[in-house]
Amino acid sequence: MKPYAATFGGAKVLVAGGLGFIGSNLALRLIELGARVTIVDSLDPDYGGNFANIAGDEPRLDVVVADLRDRERLPELVSGCRYVFNMAAQTGHVDSMRRPINDLEINAAAPLMLLEAVRAECPDAVVVYGSTRQIYGRPEYLPVDERHPLHPVDVNGVSKQAGEGFHTLYHQVYGLKTAILRLTNTYGPRMRIRDARQTFIGIWLRRVLEGDRFEVWGGQQQRDLAYVDDVVEAALLAAAVPAAHGRVFNIGGAPPLSLIDLANATIAANGGQGGFDIKEFPAERKSIDIGDYWADDNLFRRTTGWSPAVDLATGLKRSIDYYRANLARYL
Amino acid sequence: MKPYAATFGGAKVLVAGGLGFIGSNLALRLIELGARVTIVDSLDPDYGGNFANIAGDEPRLDVVVADLRDRERLPELVSGCRYVFNMAAQTGHVDSMRRPINDLEINAAAPLMLLEAVRAECPDAVVVYGSTRQIYGRPEYLPVDERHPLHPVDVNGVSKQAGEGFHTLYHQVYGLKTAILRLTNTYGPRMRIRDARQTFIGIWLRRVLEGDRFEVWGGQQQRDLAYVDDVVEAALLAAAVPAAHGRVFNIGGAPPLSLIDLANATIAANGGQGGFDIKEFPAERKSIDIGDYWADDNLFRRTTGWSPAVDLATGLKRSIDYYRANLARYL
Repeated sequence: MKPYAATFGGAKVLVAGGLGFIGSNLALRLIELGARVTIVDSLDPDYGGNFANIAGDEPRLDVVVADLRDRERLPELVSGCRYVFNMAAQTGHVDSMRRPINDLEINAAAPLMLLEAVRAECPDAVVVYGSTRQIYGRPEYLPVDERHPLHPVDVNGVSKQAGEGFHTLYHQVYGLKTAILRLTNTYGPRMRIRDARQTFIGIWLRRVLEGDRFEVWGGQQQRDLAYVDDVVEAALLAAAVPAAHGRVFNIGGAPPLSLIDLANATIAANGGQGGFDIKEFPAERKSIDIGDYWADDNLFRRTTGWSPAVDLATGLKRSIDYYRANLARYL
Repeated sequence: MKPYAATFGGAKVLVAGGLGFIGSNLALRLIELGARVTIVDSLDPDYGGNFANIAGDEPRLDVVVADLRDRERLPELVSGCRYVFNMAAQTGHVDSMRRPINDLEINAAAPLMLLEAVRAECPDAVVVYGSTRQIYGRPEYLPVDERHPLHPVDVNGVSKQAGEGFHTLYHQVYGLKTAILRLTNTYGPRMRIRDARQTFIGIWLRRVLEGDRFEVWGGQQQRDLAYVDDVVEAALLAAAVPAAHGRVFNIGGAPPLSLIDLANATIAANGGQGGFDIKEFPAERKSIDIGDYWADDNLFRRTTGWSPAVDLATGLKRSIDYYRANLARYL
């Protein structure tokens, strides 16, 4: 039995960004566990929110389409909540350079507003904040643990670092039960595949399923990949295990591999169908690329007992099966 | 001759926060050096902006009352500038906890907007950003050098850290000539003395000049103090010395002393007139207090040749003389 089996039953839970990739997978898992789940999502067309992500489960979810920056909405949304999962984010690195203020608002100001609402309305709630390995910048050593210096290389990293800072601060000053998860590249059903805005794997899957070749930029970069169900499990444990509160954790995944190996694994998961071309990095992307990254997530494993359960081949196969069955809803 | 003597003559310069404490002292020094100075200041009544700070010099300054958050105004303000000094800030620590979004907007979003405007309009300009030792949080060792970890203990520290991060980033990605100065407690003519919002020394001076006793909270904390003319000199050098661009520097000042010793020095500077009472820290302030702090500023001294020129007794005496002559304009 999961350590959190009884934790979420009957609990009021808010999932911000709950129509998006990780948020929707988390919301669906929470209703399986018996939680009363409210989703808030801006449905900004540039990001991951998509009603297809909860298709068939709408009756079991309370869905509010609102922007977290609309702070008047927040007190009502968090009132009575025992858990708040903030998975609402602007994740695009190039996008963050093109629209920097927007990135700061979504990734730092909105989380701060949400913390203020929690402090006022439900100060005993646990707040789990979905952060990113992007705040480390280019790794100085590998694997990257939580003591690695933070040298963000794009606006997204600076904004998320501030978002984290507010969570740490509200724990220290006000005693809020916050937990911060620095996620690596996450993939799986319900990610955005229309383009590469959320993750490059999204557009790879789309191309493969449409019978087109995809592009691999660079190709030698080593990355770890986390399957979304494992990330959802991590978020639930971060909420349920008191020893995780007030802390910052890396969440990694499969052993690192090069993007070329990942591209080959993607084609293998598609029954060997597909192909790719290796391209030079575009200039505006190269200037903010972080190179190789993989996480040391032993702190989280030790603290919560978590470990990833889905290997890369399985995860890719499940992803392809999901999008093959639902492709039209994601284009 | 100062190394920057010829640098500023005839140059168009923007001083953001230029009606405030450090900003106005800087603007006045720049017009002495022959610069064409535009001041932009929001004149928010909670902060340091005060027309008294430029009394008599209005004809030599171009003053624009505007909030940097009003981003449509920024391109025109920075157009043609060779130097941009951003001394516009929300500096109150307790205020930052009471109005956290406001702090983030002023200390992170507005500087980001200003950087965007510089990038578009005057990418060769030097941008000097007035930051704060607050981002270090409670020192782990003393004196604090620039390698000290950043663990802000209030919203102000998190916001200013993000403000810094954007300057570093815009240097690395776009090649902007930014320089960041982490200032310690600064005092001198033109600071806000109406209350303790800008610095506790302000209210001490007011009380002393009004013949009232002032309060010292705690009293054993050790702090270094920088006289404003020395900080102005540091800002000019940070702009003028290319080796300072793209970097972060502590700016310290007089040797550290306890607040009780500082209180006694303040009374001595007032001809021995005045008295104070030692009080317990108020709870909301204690939770975010950083304890002892003094800066190791050798990096900046080595890089630019700067050293503080005004000792504490002289600086306090000048401050008292200034406010004795101008008290009514600062109440």
